[in-house]
Amino acid sequence: MNEETIKKIISATDHTLLRADATWDEIKQICDDGAKYKTASVCIPPCYVEMAHSYMPGLNICTVIGFPNGNQTTKTKVLETMDALNKGASEIDMVINIGMLKAGEYEYVENEIRAIKEACGDHILKVIIETCLLTNDQKAKMCKIVSKAGADYIKTSTGFSAGGATFDDIRLFHANVADNVKIKAAGGISSLEDAEMFMELGAERLGTSRIIKMVKDLGE
Amino acid sequence: MNEETIKKIISATDHTLLRADATWDEIKQICDDGAKYKTASVCIPPCYVEMAHSYMPGLNICTVIGFPNGNQTTKTKVLETMDALNKGASEIDMVINIGMLKAGEYEYVENEIRAIKEACGDHILKVIIETCLLTNDQKAKMCKIVSKAGADYIKTSTGFSAGGATFDDIRLFHANVADNVKIKAAGGISSLEDAEMFMELGAERLGTSRIIKMVKDLGE
Repeated sequence: MNEETIKKIISATDHTLLRADATWDEIKQICDDGAKYKTASVCIPPCYVEMAHSYMPGLNICTVIGFPNGNQTTKTKVLETMDALNKGASEIDMVINIGMLKAGEYEYVENEIRAIKEACGDHILKVIIETCLLTNDQKAKMCKIVSKAGADYIKTSTGFSAGGATFDDIRLFHANVADNVKIKAAGGISSLEDAEMFMELGAERLGTSRIIKMVKDLGE
Repeated sequence: MNEETIKKIISATDHTLLRADATWDEIKQICDDGAKYKTASVCIPPCYVEMAHSYMPGLNICTVIGFPNGNQTTKTKVLETMDALNKGASEIDMVINIGMLKAGEYEYVENEIRAIKEACGDHILKVIIETCLLTNDQKAKMCKIVSKAGADYIKTSTGFSAGGATFDDIRLFHANVADNVKIKAAGGISSLEDAEMFMELGAERLGTSRIIKMVKDLGE
C-alpha cells in the first residue's frame, strides 16, 4: 500500500481504547501515538478525558456516551455529554437506545439523539447503532432517524457486542443516509486493506486501535 | 430440592434482564414474574425504571449504574444514581472503575463508591468489582475498600465481561469483607444446585434471570 493511502487512513482514524480495565498509562500511550501519527482523534473512556486534555491540551479527544449498552436514561446521557465536553472532549460517540428501536419507539430514539446533539452544539456527534443487533430494515430506519436528528456521523458498532463493522453495513449506510451525515466504521477492522475498503465504500472515519499498531509494525 | 430451599433462593434473587436490546415488553415480563414469584427485586436497565415503577408501584426495582464498563466519570455515575432513585429505583448496583483499581488508584475507587453511597442514602448499594478481570489480591483489596466506603453489598460480575461468579470468589469475599457488607453472586448461575451452593458459601443475593425460568420449568 502506498504511503499516501496509509496517511489518508491514519488521518481518518479515531485511535481507540475503551476496555473496561484500561489504565491511564495505556491511555497516555494512545494519546502519544495519536499525536505522533496525527490520527483524527483519540477515542477514550469518559473518566480519562480530563487527564488526557490536561496532558495534551491540543489533542482532539473523542469519548463515548451511554456506552456500550445504550440503555441509560436520556437525562443521564445528556448530563454525561455535558460533563465530557466540560472536561475537554471535542467529539462525542453515543450509543442509541437499542431496545426502544426494537420496540418501534422511533420518536424516543430520535428525541434522544436530538437532545444529545443539542448538548453537543458545534461539537461532532457520532451515533452508534450497533448493527450486529439490528435487521437491515432497522439499520435503514436508523439512517433516516440519525439524518433527521441532525447528528454528524452514523457509526456501526461499539466493539463490545456480537460483531463489528461489515462492508455490507457501510454500503447500506451509504445508500440510506442524508448528505449531511458521514459514516464511521468501527469494530474488528483488522488490516490496512480492509480499512481502505471501508473508506472506498464511503466511511470517512474508522474506529480501531489496530491500525496504528499495524503502521508501527510496518515502520519496524 | 425441597420447596423451602427453592423459596429461599427465589427470595434472594434479583431477577435480572440487562441486555442492550431488551424491550419494554420483555422488562414487563420480568416485573410480572418478579412480583408473582416474590423475588428480592427486579434488576433492569435505567431507561426502564420509570416505566416499571409506574407499571407496578410496589415492586422493588434495582438498576445498574456505570454499567457495564465502569469507566464513566464519578460525576456521571452520581447523577445517574440520583436520576434512577428519582424515577423509582430502590436499589443501585454500580460498577467500580476497574482501570483505576488496576493502576493502584485506591483512593479514587473508594471515593467514587463513597460518593454514590451518599447519593443512595438509605437505599441499598451493591458494588460490582468484575472479578474475572481482577487478581485475587485485587479482589481482596476491593473487599476492604467496599467495606470502608460504606456500601451494602459486594457483587462479583456484570455478566457482560469474560466470566461470572465462581464459588472461589464467594469464599474469598466471605473471608475478606467486613460484617456490614453482604455478598451478591451474579453472572452465569446455571442451576438451582449452584444457587444453593452460592448461598451456602455466604451469598445473600443472586443476580440471574435463569432461576425463575428454572422454577417455572419445575412447575410445568
